[in-house]
Amino acid sequence: MIKVGIYGASGYTGQECLRLLLRHSGVEVVAITSRRYAGLPIADVYPVFAGLTPLVFMDASPQEVADLADVIFLALPHSESMKVAPIFWESGKKVVDLSADFRLRDVAVYESWYGQHACPQLVPQTVYGIPELYREDVAKARFVANPGCYPTSIILGTAPALKNKLIDPASVIADSKSGTSGAGREPQVGSLFCEVNEAFKAYKVGNHRHTPEIEQELSRLAGREMKISFTPHLLPIDRGIFSTIYATLTQSISGKELSELYQDFYKGERFVRICKAGTFPNVAFVRGSNFCDIGVAVDARTNRLIIVSTIDNLVKGAAGQAIQNMNVLCGFPEHTGLEMIALFP
Amino acid sequence: MIKVGIYGASGYTGQECLRLLLRHSGVEVVAITSRRYAGLPIADVYPVFAGLTPLVFMDASPQEVADLADVIFLALPHSESMKVAPIFWESGKKVVDLSADFRLRDVAVYESWYGQHACPQLVPQTVYGIPELYREDVAKARFVANPGCYPTSIILGTAPALKNKLIDPASVIADSKSGTSGAGREPQVGSLFCEVNEAFKAYKVGNHRHTPEIEQELSRLAGREMKISFTPHLLPIDRGIFSTIYATLTQSISGKELSELYQDFYKGERFVRICKAGTFPNVAFVRGSNFCDIGVAVDARTNRLIIVSTIDNLVKGAAGQAIQNMNVLCGFPEHTGLEMIALFP
Amino acid sequence: MIKVGIYGASGYTGQECLRLLLRHSGVEVVAITSRRYAGLPIADVYPVFAGLTPLVFMDASPQEVADLADVIFLALPHSESMKVAPIFWESGKKVVDLSADFRLRDVAVYESWYGQHACPQLVPQTVYGIPELYREDVAKARFVANPGCYPTSIILGTAPALKNKLIDPASVIADSKSGTSGAGREPQVGSLFCEVNEAFKAYKVGNHRHTPEIEQELSRLAGREMKISFTPHLLPIDRGIFSTIYATLTQSISGKELSELYQDFYKGERFVRICKAGTFPNVAFVRGSNFCDIGVAVDARTNRLIIVSTIDNLVKGAAGQAIQNMNVLCGFPEHTGLEMIALFP
Amino acid sequence: MIKVGIYGASGYTGQECLRLLLRHSGVEVVAITSRRYAGLPIADVYPVFAGLTPLVFMDASPQEVADLADVIFLALPHSESMKVAPIFWESGKKVVDLSADFRLRDVAVYESWYGQHACPQLVPQTVYGIPELYREDVAKARFVANPGCYPTSIILGTAPALKNKLIDPASVIADSKSGTSGAGREPQVGSLFCEVNEAFKAYKVGNHRHTPEIEQELSRLAGREMKISFTPHLLPIDRGIFSTIYATLTQSISGKELSELYQDFYKGERFVRICKAGTFPNVAFVRGSNFCDIGVAVDARTNRLIIVSTIDNLVKGAAGQAIQNMNVLCGFPEHTGLEMIALFP
Repeated sequence: MIKVGIYGASGYTGQECLRLLLRHSGVEVVAITSRRYAGLPIADVYPVFAGLTPLVFMDASPQEVADLADVIFLALPHSESMKVAPIFWESGKKVVDLSADFRLRDVAVYESWYGQHACPQLVPQTVYGIPELYREDVAKARFVANPGCYPTSIILGTAPALKNKLIDPASVIADSKSGTSGAGREPQVGSLFCEVNEAFKAYKVGNHRHTPEIEQELSRLAGREMKISFTPHLLPIDRGIFSTIYATLTQSISGKELSELYQDFYKGERFVRICKAGTFPNVAFVRGSNFCDIGVAVDARTNRLIIVSTIDNLVKGAAGQAIQNMNVLCGFPEHTGLEMIALFP
Repeated sequence: MIKVGIYGASGYTGQECLRLLLRHSGVEVVAITSRRYAGLPIADVYPVFAGLTPLVFMDASPQEVADLADVIFLALPHSESMKVAPIFWESGKKVVDLSADFRLRDVAVYESWYGQHACPQLVPQTVYGIPELYREDVAKARFVANPGCYPTSIILGTAPALKNKLIDPASVIADSKSGTSGAGREPQVGSLFCEVNEAFKAYKVGNHRHTPEIEQELSRLAGREMKISFTPHLLPIDRGIFSTIYATLTQSISGKELSELYQDFYKGERFVRICKAGTFPNVAFVRGSNFCDIGVAVDARTNRLIIVSTIDNLVKGAAGQAIQNMNVLCGFPEHTGLEMIALFP
Repeated sequence: MIKVGIYGASGYTGQECLRLLLRHSGVEVVAITSRRYAGLPIADVYPVFAGLTPLVFMDASPQEVADLADVIFLALPHSESMKVAPIFWESGKKVVDLSADFRLRDVAVYESWYGQHACPQLVPQTVYGIPELYREDVAKARFVANPGCYPTSIILGTAPALKNKLIDPASVIADSKSGTSGAGREPQVGSLFCEVNEAFKAYKVGNHRHTPEIEQELSRLAGREMKISFTPHLLPIDRGIFSTIYATLTQSISGKELSELYQDFYKGERFVRICKAGTFPNVAFVRGSNFCDIGVAVDARTNRLIIVSTIDNLVKGAAGQAIQNMNVLCGFPEHTGLEMIALFP
Repeated sequence: MIKVGIYGASGYTGQECLRLLLRHSGVEVVAITSRRYAGLPIADVYPVFAGLTPLVFMDASPQEVADLADVIFLALPHSESMKVAPIFWESGKKVVDLSADFRLRDVAVYESWYGQHACPQLVPQTVYGIPELYREDVAKARFVANPGCYPTSIILGTAPALKNKLIDPASVIADSKSGTSGAGREPQVGSLFCEVNEAFKAYKVGNHRHTPEIEQELSRLAGREMKISFTPHLLPIDRGIFSTIYATLTQSISGKELSELYQDFYKGERFVRICKAGTFPNVAFVRGSNFCDIGVAVDARTNRLIIVSTIDNLVKGAAGQAIQNMNVLCGFPEHTGLEMIALFP
């Protein structure tokens, strides 16, 4: 059994990692940390775990956790992660970092969006962990940057079209919608039930920090620098990312050909499902699962490709993909612990 | 007091008309019709009306209602409306039609999206009722086609930019989201609580029937034929339309100038509110009110204009705008009966 | 025009008072206070007010507000209200206090549930403001304690049965459910969207502070001391209180007789609606309105009376009833500014 | 591998059975039936199954399914089930019936609530399948009546108190709340999103058909005939049953003793979790899992016991308990396929 530690386990992402890892046949969770809840059983903070695990939150140093575990999940807020990452790195253990701190390959870009980077020396060692695109790199890595939730949906949704030069890179617009768990468990007015329920809004219009991450990966896929318009919105649901993506076609293609091209691109990929031509995904059908469901359409009237891509932000957009990366890192079958069928309704 | 009849009053739109008209100081509702509920007090079907009105659903002919009322609201499904419209027209009464049957000025376009038109002779007599754009035409009319909910949000959101040639008409993309009341009260699987709650989907991708209505009006504003990409989505909320609109700028403009241009365009308009530069609307802040809230941003990185426009689909997107049109038709101050402040939370 | 001040206007209750008062034909709101938001237009904090009022939050002393206004709404948290109440009282102005500080006639009972009372001398001057029961007292008062939301629903629901000695006072059980706006706008984990949505829980089982308020009023109605079991629950909706009340019948009565007895008791009361025999209320049908809807049933199998009583917690359970009290205090027709029909859906 | 058929698999309960059975290590699903969807892959009707099963709905006769399967789940509506049950019985196969048709041991009681029984001869062969109470009977049975969702929550919640004569059987009141999936997938106005969302109501007050089932089982536990007041309510959530139960204590007991008594009663039961003294369950913490979470309190002021009991209606209240019964019937470890941790948020 591989020993796993979750550093920063008190948020929604941390508890989701635990929920999945407790049902993973190849690992044992040996440490979960939280400064705020130190000393409390996680079952007191998240009663879903009552009767299922005796784990207690520790206020442990990175070194203490590195000593206990073979693999560490870093589930800290942005800018906290890079402060402790070097200790884990130097310990020689494997790390999946769920923060944004190591996702950008260019430190200058990072600093223009987030401020000074505390650990630039680790950036070149980091692999960006979308297994569907970088499986072999992940397999050889020791430090994986787990992608953001919005980027995962948009990158998987556009990869076949960009790789096949089907669309004009300058024309890509991603209109994305996220469930509220993406805002975390910190109490703030904007996340209150009465502010989110029966509401819908755009936020950080034109300046969301996932933009450079998306552009980095789309540029690699397109083979040239590209920029996108990315607008995130807040959905009154718990879980889910839903991206509607628009791009101008560079060539004529039928809906059927398009579907087949997407099917081919993801052939053999267990966690990407392409909808039948003429049908589109619903965020409800991936809830609690590690799937990315994608539907595509040709809008012949306007010569545009419309792509709809949806995931569960806490699973394929965070904890599930982190475990998928861990599976690749550690040599487990990639779907181990990730066989969940979506919970519907 | 003006006498009003609501023909087809059993749906969400019909009851919303009644809710507003009962608080309108200049009118008296004299007839509400429904075949299914004939003989039942509306308070039995919609208990919000208990103690507030003795009105009973009638199964009355158009002629009978025309005889009773000075103004008729047609709140029938598409294709039903055009069957009865001529009777009301010939009666000489004023009509606000909330269906789609008379919104398209070109019968051929109507027929390519909806099938044969039963009353093409009335199309030229019809005025498209967005008072903010066609107030004088409405004032002179006797038959008003009340706009669709999606179109209202998109037309009001883009009018200042199109009129001022700020954007390339060929580049307009509208990603719209609607509350579920837009689907009506007919029982169907797709409208069940368990199918909509915690869910989000796109529907009728590339072929929603509001497309030609939007293109008709945007083309008029742009002064040339134009097509748009329009994708509707279903939101797990009761009320609201929220459109995020993208278009390529034809000239350089600052966010501040843009805001001012929008403010100027709608100067004196009571029901259009332009958000301060840097802020954007939330569908929750128009709930139950007749406002259209609009926020705009320049995305300098991609040279695009981003417009966010939101309304309550049952008010400014249906019953509220219908009453606004009635007020113009009948010479009431335009906001009579429409002074509601949005219900929040 | 009566001049009104809202002292502590930044919470959901305060803004709801303003929403209603802005549409009240007999008053002018001259001051709204908030320490946190001092200097900000309320339209910046609650965009529903954009374009509708220039009011700006003041950080004003009680004396300053007393100097400006004829009537003051105190919308402060419990224990804050009693600190400023004496200043308003001594100013000679009329006050409607929306906190719990002056609802209990017995200071000792207050102190056993809340801790020390800072202003016991004002308690005897206070009238408990349910106009349906104490209209004449309110009319003569100068300081009104506006009832709690749970108590309003339970008191109005049980009054006819208790007054008529229909039920055994020792047998009353109230199982109540509240929308989340009752928890206020303070950020806390338990009020976050992801904690409330798709969730339902009981809280403060056996020890909620509304218990003594309910028992005080029910004892008066029953004409003897009585205790109840009261269990509050949190509903994943914005607005509404729904109480299901059980009590053992002391005599035989048919459902029809029961309905008539309730109808008679509330004859002429505009804001209490008794459902037809065999039908029961839905919290959705009072949303945004000042109604209390009540349904009653005889459970002959178990010899119990079952009463269902529902209100909007922010209207009849707070701001609406406060304005109803103000109307009585100031001699306006009691329904002035409270004619809203519930917003459905 | 045990071969399983689901007869009537197109509703929410049927698909939930499939969702769980596909992840059960000891069974293979060989047939799913639906008249309406015959010929369609279930993945077309419930896209959660896309890529996970090739199963296609069959319009098969009971005999055909009995020929294919070793165990049959009957997931038909009430009154349909008893028509086909005898065929399955005579085939010698094991059956778990999820309808209400065989839950009542007294055919006369059944007929007074439901109408004529089509298959009374099978009633005596049937075991009522709450494994926590009747495990040994189930192990010996061949035909199991899977309990109703409301009854499961109330029976498990009251069993320790009734068995220990802690409460007066005549005093039991159950105020229950159900998520909307309990209403099924049939389109009807009352189940529409806009009718359920932001709403809450009681229904079938005093006459819900689960009443005799609850009374049958509570009477057995109490050792004497008893009646209860049972009021169901509709919650605006997808999944969950939450029962708040009130009863008069027959003896003095502390909260701590009460908790321990409940802990002892369910010692060794994997699917019943008793909350720590002073804490209560939340329906969100059992979502998607087979747990029944129970919290108890002594209300010393009124001498009542308050019990809060919650389950997921589609899991422990239907499909999960059915599989638990199948596991007992077939000799699998009882939790096989039921290890899910609740999905939160």
